[in-house]
Amino acid sequence: MAESSPVRFGILGCANIARKVSRAIALAPNATISAVGSRSIEKATAYAQENGYPSTTKIYGSYEAVLDDPEVDAVYVPLPTSLHVKWAVLAAQKKKHVLLEKPVALNVKELDVILEECESNGVQYMDATMWMHHPRTAKMKEFLSDSQRFGQLKSVHSTFAYLGDTEFLENNIRVKSDLDALGALGDAGWYSIRAILWTTDYELPKTVTALRDPEFNEAGVILSCGASLSWKDGRVATFYCSFLANMAMDIVASGSKGNLRVHDFVIPFKENVAPFYTVEDSWFGELAKSIHPAPSEQQVNTDLPQEALMVTEFSNLVGSIKGEGSKPEKRWPTISRKTQLVVDAVKASIEKGFEPVEIIY
Amino acid sequence: MAESSPVRFGILGCANIARKVSRAIALAPNATISAVGSRSIEKATAYAQENGYPSTTKIYGSYEAVLDDPEVDAVYVPLPTSLHVKWAVLAAQKKKHVLLEKPVALNVKELDVILEECESNGVQYMDATMWMHHPRTAKMKEFLSDSQRFGQLKSVHSTFAYLGDTEFLENNIRVKSDLDALGALGDAGWYSIRAILWTTDYELPKTVTALRDPEFNEAGVILSCGASLSWKDGRVATFYCSFLANMAMDIVASGSKGNLRVHDFVIPFKENVAPFYTVEDSWFGELAKSIHPAPSEQQVNTDLPQEALMVTEFSNLVGSIKGEGSKPEKRWPTISRKTQLVVDAVKASIEKGFEPVEIIY
Repeated sequence: MAESSPVRFGILGCANIARKVSRAIALAPNATISAVGSRSIEKATAYAQENGYPSTTKIYGSYEAVLDDPEVDAVYVPLPTSLHVKWAVLAAQKKKHVLLEKPVALNVKELDVILEECESNGVQYMDATMWMHHPRTAKMKEFLSDSQRFGQLKSVHSTFAYLGDTEFLENNIRVKSDLDALGALGDAGWYSIRAILWTTDYELPKTVTALRDPEFNEAGVILSCGASLSWKDGRVATFYCSFLANMAMDIVASGSKGNLRVHDFVIPFKENVAPFYTVEDSWFGELAKSIHPAPSEQQVNTDLPQEALMVTEFSNLVGSIKGEGSKPEKRWPTISRKTQLVVDAVKASIEKGFEPVEIIY
Repeated sequence: MAESSPVRFGILGCANIARKVSRAIALAPNATISAVGSRSIEKATAYAQENGYPSTTKIYGSYEAVLDDPEVDAVYVPLPTSLHVKWAVLAAQKKKHVLLEKPVALNVKELDVILEECESNGVQYMDATMWMHHPRTAKMKEFLSDSQRFGQLKSVHSTFAYLGDTEFLENNIRVKSDLDALGALGDAGWYSIRAILWTTDYELPKTVTALRDPEFNEAGVILSCGASLSWKDGRVATFYCSFLANMAMDIVASGSKGNLRVHDFVIPFKENVAPFYTVEDSWFGELAKSIHPAPSEQQVNTDLPQEALMVTEFSNLVGSIKGEGSKPEKRWPTISRKTQLVVDAVKASIEKGFEPVEIIY
C-alpha cells in the first residue's frame, strides 16, 4: 500500500481531538491532510496553521465544501455526536470513506443509517477507537486467546474515568444534551464496553443490567454509570465509567488459567512503550503463607502512536478499495455496531429502573 | 501486653488452615498453643507433632475437652461453617475468647447467636480475616482516607478467585451443602465484600444486587458469583468471586482525586513485603497523546506475617480483658456482622432472581 498514492483526508471541524488525529495523519505513511472545513473560514485557517497542516491544504468555510472536493478520499468526523448522522451520511453519499469519532451515534438506529449509507456507497467505515490499533492490544489478545496460558474467560472488569473540572462539567460538549447526549456512557463507557466485547471476541452478552444510581447533571446527561453483562454461561463482565473520578483506564480479565491486567488501555502512559501484566497458574505457597507467581510486566514498543496506526490501517483499507476495487472491510462497522448495541442497552436499563435488557442483534 | 502471660490457645480440630494459624500463634509474642482437640486423639497427636506444637500441648480426643480445660484462654475455630454456632456458642459459655474462621456463619441470624453469646459472656470475638492485620492494609487505608490524595470514593471493584481442581470441586468442605453451604460466596466472596466495606469505612450499602448467572455445583452450592452494591450517592461497588478462575485478589478503588490498586490483598505474593499501587491527579499529556503520571508502587514491610499480627491483636484484646478487666472490643464483631449482612444479601438476591435487596442493619 505504501507505494500507492496516500489517502487524502478532509477534516470536518476544528475539534480539539482533531489535532491529535491530524498529527496521526501526518505520521501515517499512507495518508495526508488534503482539506479542512469549518463553519468559519477564519477558524479553519488558524487551525490549519496552528497544527502545521501542509501548505497545500485546502481551507473551506463549510463542511459541504470538503465533501464536494474531488481530491478528498476520506473524511475524519470529530463533530458532536448529534451531527454524525447528517455529516457521515452526506460524506458516504459523496463517496468519501468515513473515520468517525466516538460516540458514533446516539443510538443504533442512527448508526444503522450511517452504516447502510456507507455500505451502499462502497465506502469504508471505521470508528476512531484508537487503542484497538496499538500493537499492545494484539499482544494482549494473543494472551487472552491462549488456551494454555489464559484458558476460558470467566470475568472481566473495566473502568474508564477521568475527572472533569468545573469548566468541563459546565461547558464541554460531552455533558450537553443537544450535542453528546450519552455523556460519560458514550464517551468513557464506549471504551470499557468495547474492551469487554474485545475480550469475548465480540460475542454479545445476553443481558445488560445497569448498576443502580448513576449520576446525572441537571440536563439529565450521565456523568457516571456502570453495568453488568451476562452471557448465561458463567461469564460476567462489569464496568464503571465516569467524569467524576480520577483517571483510570483498566481492564482486569480473569481466565480459568491466567489473568490479564492493564491500567492505561485507552491511552498508554507513554507514547512509545506500553505495559500490561499477565500471570498464569497462580497458587498458594506452603501453608498458604504466600501466592506465586506474582504477575509479570510485558512491554510493547511502538514506533508510531496508536492513532497513527489507526489512520494507517484505515488508509490501507481505503487504498485497497481505491486501488484494487476491494470491498470495504466489514469487521469495523460490525464491532462498532455491537458496541453501540451495548451502549444502548445500558441506557435502556437505566431508563427501565435497572432492569436487565436483552440484547437482540 | 507483652509482659503479661501469653494468651493460651486451644485449637478445635485439625483443619489445614489451622496449620497456618498454629504457626502464627507460635510466632505471636503474646500467644501460645496450649491444647488441641480432635474427634480422634490419634489424629490430634499426629497433628500436634507434624506442626511442631510445644511438648506441653494438651492433646484431647474431643472439642469439649478443650473447652473444659481451665488453662485455655481462647479458642481458634476452623471447623466447617455449619458447626460454628454449636462450638462458638459453647466456647463463649465456657468463657473462652473466640477467634472464628470465616465464613463465620451460614447467615446473620446464626452469627447473632454467636455474637450475643460472646457479648453476654464478656469474651472477645474476632473473625480470622488475616489481611485486615497486615501493615499494608493500614497504609492503604491512610491513602484512601486522604482527601487530598484520594478524595471521595466513587467506585471500587474487587475480585477474589482461585481455581479449584477436580479433587477440590468434588471433596472440599467449601463445596459441600452440609458443611460450607455458602460456597465461593462465603469463602472468596467474604474477602471481597470485606474489602469493599473497608473502603467505605464500613458504611453499609443501601442495596445489593447479585450479578446474573452465578455458577453452582450439582448440590446447588455457589462456585462463582458476583454482585453490585449501591450507596445511593453515586458510589458503586462490584465484586466477583469464584472457584473456577485463576487466582486473583484485587481491589481497584477510584476516588475523585486518586486511585488505589492491589492485586494480592488476601495473601501477599511475598510474606515479608507487600506492594500496592497509587496514583493521583492523573491527566492527559499534550494532545492527549499520553497519560501522566503512571501509578507508583508502594512497598510495605512486615516482620511478622499478617496471620501472626492477627493473633497478636486478638491476644492483646484478650490480655486486656484478662489482665485489666477491659470490655471486649466491639469493632471486630461489628465489621464481621456487616460483612455477613452483605453475604446474606447477595445470597438473597440470587434466590430472588437478581432483584436488588435492601440492607437493613
